[in-house]
Amino acid sequence: MFNPFFKNAGPFKLSDLLNECTDHSVLSDKILKDNILIFDVRNLNEATSKDLTFFHSIKYKDLAIKTKAYACITKSDFFHLLPKDCIKIDSKNILLLIAMITTKFYPDSITDTNNYNLLNIKEKFKDIVCGKNTFVGSNILIGKGTKVGHNTIIESNVNIGKNCFIGSNVILRNSIIEDNVHILDGAVVGKKGFGFIPRNLKNFRYPHVGYVHIKKNSEIGCGSTIDRGSLSVTTIGENTYLDNQVHVAHNVKIGNNCIIAGQVGIAGSSILGNNVSIGGQAGISGHIKIGNNVQIGGGSGVIKDIADNSKVMGYPAKNFRNFLKNNKLK
Amino acid sequence: MFNPFFKNAGPFKLSDLLNECTDHSVLSDKILKDNILIFDVRNLNEATSKDLTFFHSIKYKDLAIKTKAYACITKSDFFHLLPKDCIKIDSKNILLLIAMITTKFYPDSITDTNNYNLLNIKEKFKDIVCGKNTFVGSNILIGKGTKVGHNTIIESNVNIGKNCFIGSNVILRNSIIEDNVHILDGAVVGKKGFGFIPRNLKNFRYPHVGYVHIKKNSEIGCGSTIDRGSLSVTTIGENTYLDNQVHVAHNVKIGNNCIIAGQVGIAGSSILGNNVSIGGQAGISGHIKIGNNVQIGGGSGVIKDIADNSKVMGYPAKNFRNFLKNNKLK
Amino acid sequence: MFNPFFKNAGPFKLSDLLNECTDHSVLSDKILKDNILIFDVRNLNEATSKDLTFFHSIKYKDLAIKTKAYACITKSDFFHLLPKDCIKIDSKNILLLIAMITTKFYPDSITDTNNYNLLNIKEKFKDIVCGKNTFVGSNILIGKGTKVGHNTIIESNVNIGKNCFIGSNVILRNSIIEDNVHILDGAVVGKKGFGFIPRNLKNFRYPHVGYVHIKKNSEIGCGSTIDRGSLSVTTIGENTYLDNQVHVAHNVKIGNNCIIAGQVGIAGSSILGNNVSIGGQAGISGHIKIGNNVQIGGGSGVIKDIADNSKVMGYPAKNFRNFLKNNKLK
Repeated sequence: MFNPFFKNAGPFKLSDLLNECTDHSVLSDKILKDNILIFDVRNLNEATSKDLTFFHSIKYKDLAIKTKAYACITKSDFFHLLPKDCIKIDSKNILLLIAMITTKFYPDSITDTNNYNLLNIKEKFKDIVCGKNTFVGSNILIGKGTKVGHNTIIESNVNIGKNCFIGSNVILRNSIIEDNVHILDGAVVGKKGFGFIPRNLKNFRYPHVGYVHIKKNSEIGCGSTIDRGSLSVTTIGENTYLDNQVHVAHNVKIGNNCIIAGQVGIAGSSILGNNVSIGGQAGISGHIKIGNNVQIGGGSGVIKDIADNSKVMGYPAKNFRNFLKNNKLK
Repeated sequence: MFNPFFKNAGPFKLSDLLNECTDHSVLSDKILKDNILIFDVRNLNEATSKDLTFFHSIKYKDLAIKTKAYACITKSDFFHLLPKDCIKIDSKNILLLIAMITTKFYPDSITDTNNYNLLNIKEKFKDIVCGKNTFVGSNILIGKGTKVGHNTIIESNVNIGKNCFIGSNVILRNSIIEDNVHILDGAVVGKKGFGFIPRNLKNFRYPHVGYVHIKKNSEIGCGSTIDRGSLSVTTIGENTYLDNQVHVAHNVKIGNNCIIAGQVGIAGSSILGNNVSIGGQAGISGHIKIGNNVQIGGGSGVIKDIADNSKVMGYPAKNFRNFLKNNKLK
Repeated sequence: MFNPFFKNAGPFKLSDLLNECTDHSVLSDKILKDNILIFDVRNLNEATSKDLTFFHSIKYKDLAIKTKAYACITKSDFFHLLPKDCIKIDSKNILLLIAMITTKFYPDSITDTNNYNLLNIKEKFKDIVCGKNTFVGSNILIGKGTKVGHNTIIESNVNIGKNCFIGSNVILRNSIIEDNVHILDGAVVGKKGFGFIPRNLKNFRYPHVGYVHIKKNSEIGCGSTIDRGSLSVTTIGENTYLDNQVHVAHNVKIGNNCIIAGQVGIAGSSILGNNVSIGGQAGISGHIKIGNNVQIGGGSGVIKDIADNSKVMGYPAKNFRNFLKNNKLK
């Protein structure tokens, strides 16, 4: 991902990064003296030969074998799944180490420190039709014909396209919003995801360097929350409609022409295809893949990948006919 | 429904309506030249002999046979279920056609364009006890003894009764609120429902001409969302209490003395009787009917009608005893 | 519980309390003429020899036998479970009677009447870094280094520790918040719980005299609601993280180092141990006990106590292995 919003404090020497962030196994002298400059922390498939990456789950082995990263934080069991020339760093707690290092690169991405120097939107955008007490921060673009409601905070790093409708009490940060998008009252878009390394007494917050990308003609319902990605983008596809009180966690990617009913929750890093419809209150586990043209019944709990053109229902979600057969309603 | 809030741009000639909105089958010359004026679009049971109606689901056949509408958009399979003298219009996409025509009658009902000319509530209602930064728009009535919190937006078309308590960060539109109603912080009442005709690239938004009616002595919890009806009213009965984060979709009708616990969701057009209690996180599918004195256990998913005096639980919800029998907890 | 926030209008004579609040059975002359002063209404385990208590569910029999209360409202079936010298008051509707009496002691605890005399936070706390349109009421403390966002209302009776981060559109009341706590956008903390005695035509609202206690290093997600206790505290333990749209009802106690994912709901008076993790959208019934180190899968519905170190999933939640065995996913 090209990260458009957070300032990169790097580059850093690999040796410095690893000597400062010490939650890894004993490393070879070769690594600990490596003077190569690391320019960024990126996912396996996005890292260049100047970047550091990480590989923590066997789910990502197909991406691991093709990574171009200079070095990879992983565990020794996975060493053989990485390219020969990729430097392998063994860690007991891969996510903690990558979180510590990412924090060095992007210290501002840990918490959503507010921008305390907002201006009334009318001072900055004279032509925008807007309501009462709406404020904007730094690095904001708003396209022609876009209207903004009351008590809305467009805090920092937000590009809004043309002819959008932004409601009241909305909070936007770190988001790219294309043309004709509607964001309804009380939605919160672009806050950091719910990611941290659990530790007794004081968890270590995972940095969220990513952003939210809402494609054109989409709608985000009242009170919905869409968290920005950690090292990746959270995407809402074109012409995709979310009802009220929907929660979309960090790194989720939703395709085009999807219909997501009220109170649905989609956990982190899951990927939905195009033309997916999800009934009210259904939940999608993290790190799973839903194909194209999938229908998910209301209240379902999806805990496994779902193939294209499937119709599922239940908790756990299964083929719709089997759900009905197994559940006589008397 | 007598529609109190949205301005009717009609009447229109039936022939003009059908010639402009072309998503219907080849129609007879007789219909295409019909110069009769249509005054409104209404539901089957509410249409008068000057109105247009629609009939899209067999669920409504009992209402269809008795409709007084001048004309009805439906499909040819249903023609025999309508009165002889009702003009029948065959459509491949009934809801799209009725949405297009309703939009001609009520162009303002498609999206919730904000009222950008609000006044501080104290300028308009000098005797109301109210908080900071609370604003009101046009066509607002507020009864004696009602108190309003901070940052609340009472946007347009809202009648509030006496001795109500409206919290902070609340957004109200298109609603009739009777005496002694409590609406708690962050609730959004009267926004358009989640209704549209799905189409690739750009969905067609369904007009929401209705309103929300909250009867006396009721309570709406924090962060709850109550959408207004499409051609009908969304009703919360007398002395009915909703907990936090409840979602009530468009056209839902809830009876008197109901208790709806936290995070419950009720999908569009469902009808609940009196004295219904619903446990936390339960979901009710759309277009179903729950009788009087029904108890629905927490977490249930109700996908079929429920008879009076029943006690149900489960997903799908079934008789409570059977739920317990089928679910040993070890 | 020592109640730090609500003013006690007592003491009252026991006889006066019982003669005014008449929803009890015929009482002995001895009780109706008892001139002893009652100083407070407290739970079974917290009442002193000058207090009144109540005992309405057999679940609490272990606390009942040890209560030090001067008198207890209960039903005659439970008389033998109370200490000999405790005065026993028979009531047909224990909760209604105790609610009526508590209301006499704490008339302000019934509804969250807003504080309509707020000041801009900058007028009262000059050193606090804060956003636009943020207001504070009476009895507020804010520690050094704490930052507060935009449009936030810190209404009454709130002690905030050092180095906290309070987001935008947040509403706080009746809460003690320790150091380093993060409360994210749109959260509502400390409102009255969803408690009332159902009655036709007009429910009787249960007074909520308690408060919310959030211990250090915790995080409350966007749009989450944490209700204050009735006669008790609602507690979020140290280093416990709640994701977005979580609902925590009155009197709930959550331990340390817990992880509560998005859209989870925890019903009233339940108690969670330390190191509990709960997956997204899971629901916990009221008045149950979850042990330490428990893992609850996403979407689960927990309706019984869960022992330490258990891993459960399903609705109703059961042993995780049995859940998988019983649910083939085809």
